[in-house]
Amino acid sequence: MTEGRDSQRISPPALPAGIDTPAVVIDLDIVERNAHRLGDELSRRGIALRPHAKTHKSVALARLQLEAGARGLTVGNLGEAEVFAAGGLDDLFIAYPIWADGPKAARLRALHDLDNLRLAVGFDSIAGAERLAAAVAGSRRRLAVILELDPGNRRTGAPAQAAGLIAAAARELGLDVRGVFTHGGHAYGPGAAGPAGADEVATLTAGAAALAAENIEPVVVSAGSTPTQLTAAVAPVNEIRAGTYLIGDRQQWFIGAVPDDGVAIAVAATVVSTAVDGQVVIDAGAKTLTKDVASYLTGHGVIPAYPEAVIERVSDYHGMVRIPPGTPRPTLGEIVAVIPNHVCPVIDLRDSFVATRSGTIVGIWPVDARGRSG
Amino acid sequence: MTEGRDSQRISPPALPAGIDTPAVVIDLDIVERNAHRLGDELSRRGIALRPHAKTHKSVALARLQLEAGARGLTVGNLGEAEVFAAGGLDDLFIAYPIWADGPKAARLRALHDLDNLRLAVGFDSIAGAERLAAAVAGSRRRLAVILELDPGNRRTGAPAQAAGLIAAAARELGLDVRGVFTHGGHAYGPGAAGPAGADEVATLTAGAAALAAENIEPVVVSAGSTPTQLTAAVAPVNEIRAGTYLIGDRQQWFIGAVPDDGVAIAVAATVVSTAVDGQVVIDAGAKTLTKDVASYLTGHGVIPAYPEAVIERVSDYHGMVRIPPGTPRPTLGEIVAVIPNHVCPVIDLRDSFVATRSGTIVGIWPVDARGRSG
Repeated sequence: MTEGRDSQRISPPALPAGIDTPAVVIDLDIVERNAHRLGDELSRRGIALRPHAKTHKSVALARLQLEAGARGLTVGNLGEAEVFAAGGLDDLFIAYPIWADGPKAARLRALHDLDNLRLAVGFDSIAGAERLAAAVAGSRRRLAVILELDPGNRRTGAPAQAAGLIAAAARELGLDVRGVFTHGGHAYGPGAAGPAGADEVATLTAGAAALAAENIEPVVVSAGSTPTQLTAAVAPVNEIRAGTYLIGDRQQWFIGAVPDDGVAIAVAATVVSTAVDGQVVIDAGAKTLTKDVASYLTGHGVIPAYPEAVIERVSDYHGMVRIPPGTPRPTLGEIVAVIPNHVCPVIDLRDSFVATRSGTIVGIWPVDARGRSG
Repeated sequence: MTEGRDSQRISPPALPAGIDTPAVVIDLDIVERNAHRLGDELSRRGIALRPHAKTHKSVALARLQLEAGARGLTVGNLGEAEVFAAGGLDDLFIAYPIWADGPKAARLRALHDLDNLRLAVGFDSIAGAERLAAAVAGSRRRLAVILELDPGNRRTGAPAQAAGLIAAAARELGLDVRGVFTHGGHAYGPGAAGPAGADEVATLTAGAAALAAENIEPVVVSAGSTPTQLTAAVAPVNEIRAGTYLIGDRQQWFIGAVPDDGVAIAVAATVVSTAVDGQVVIDAGAKTLTKDVASYLTGHGVIPAYPEAVIERVSDYHGMVRIPPGTPRPTLGEIVAVIPNHVCPVIDLRDSFVATRSGTIVGIWPVDARGRSG
């Protein structure tokens, strides 16, 4: 249980008194510190920050990121783009290969036609680009698109086909090819940030060259993930799309991507049962903490105040916390602060979160784009 | 991949044409058949059905269950009770050891004071019962409570303390102890339904005897879980609290608790990328399918039309589907029907679902209690 003991180093948000549980508490002082920490460093390097808003889905937190120097927002789908555009965010990149058929064609067109929105969309296939072009056919302006390249994450992006994709999109389909992007998702493990960041830089360097070969200026050369937020932040990369850096979570803390004082989120949970020996049960289960457990983690979150305790199982509304013999345990009715493994899916379960500063409630803030997954 | 091939036997809901993805589709014909299948069998046995509404969180589906013979509803927390009470459901059991402190005391009292609601609440500790009693102090009527007993699931419930808990709740605290309940959560595995059902019956038999020893009639002797819906449905059990039986999912189908024609749910997902060899990517990821994968399952859902395909990884908005060499694969842009592993957390991510009958849309139905987890 080395990791459990180490978790005592985390200084999670203080919980406000009298809170109804389960609740997600986010400390704005820590959030602002995180926003400036990365924003300032990237500014120093002359690299833009376009944070991924899927982490928080909150218009207010997005505005806070822009105030700390972010250039615009990254989103993961049309639904998030619709919500943030309606919230007044005017520079959005949908970092996803949207398949613009049927209802999605009309939704993309409606966003493209907004005069006050600067929009770009990802693509990684000619067929996908054809549908993007068809969706905006007859528009006064071209649709900005950015080609996705796989840096070794094996998710989306076709680097070997980059030249053909760029030529088809720009010349045959009349799309405004603005650049290239990668997601270093293979950085989510201990020690993986360095190699994955280098993979992103190498892949994007080749992608920028492919653009130049078509006489297209690589306006956007964008890498993204919180672990590679600094390892990929070197030329020719000119934009970073980190998301989780703002709020932190146990996973990012564990792999060293977020410092001990950078975890801004805690799930407040009440001990509701101590009936079974060696265990307490909290009222945060799978519908609060999720079942997201990275291979290098043990348990469904960590409780820094009880570092030896292991959240061993979760059912929908129960979290079963094993208490090793001879270690401290919370009492029945006690409210504990749980650091969730992965912030993104946890926030997506909430209509709102409790925004605090040092344990004082600032407001109940809506998760504006909650449930927008397509 | 035996299981994958076997999944071809599932007849999932037909997907309506032109649907926006990702979407949750629920076929009402299959739902009604499931509702009657269990309702009729329990009726034949003289046992009440009080389905757990956490599976669907839908007032409309709850009404459908009542029309098929259910006596009332089970819910998992005060939030669900508030939503279903507001929706006109008048007989609710909160099968959870509510810790009625602070905001929850006031919320419980408000529900208790509703004239048109019959409410019962679970408990498994004297301290918990004390707070329940305090929350309703001065009320004209006693609060109905039901003692939880652990049948071997090791979650909540204290069978060894049953006698003392019953005496304290009924005599000292003035609560209306109506009965005992178990949850056979240890039945969620292949071949586990028989033994777990027997555990529930044995535990409840002892609990009913403890009530009789206090001269309390065991009005409610309630077992619950979809796998034990029939194995626990024998005297002295007089109530079953199955939930997932209504809609089904891959997990319940796999362990035999739901028949091949009993899976009423499909997630409609579009293939958005085929850039990486041996793989297609669908637009249903962790924020749609969840990361709920029982130990006996492989992958984050199953696609009956492509039974060899494995949904190997999910990130928030991407599902990475491995296509073994030489097996059929869906094409870019194709919409596929995914059977999710576990229906409960999947529905909790949606504000609404597409209600169909044989592929025709009946309506977009709200998930009324979505996000109510406490």
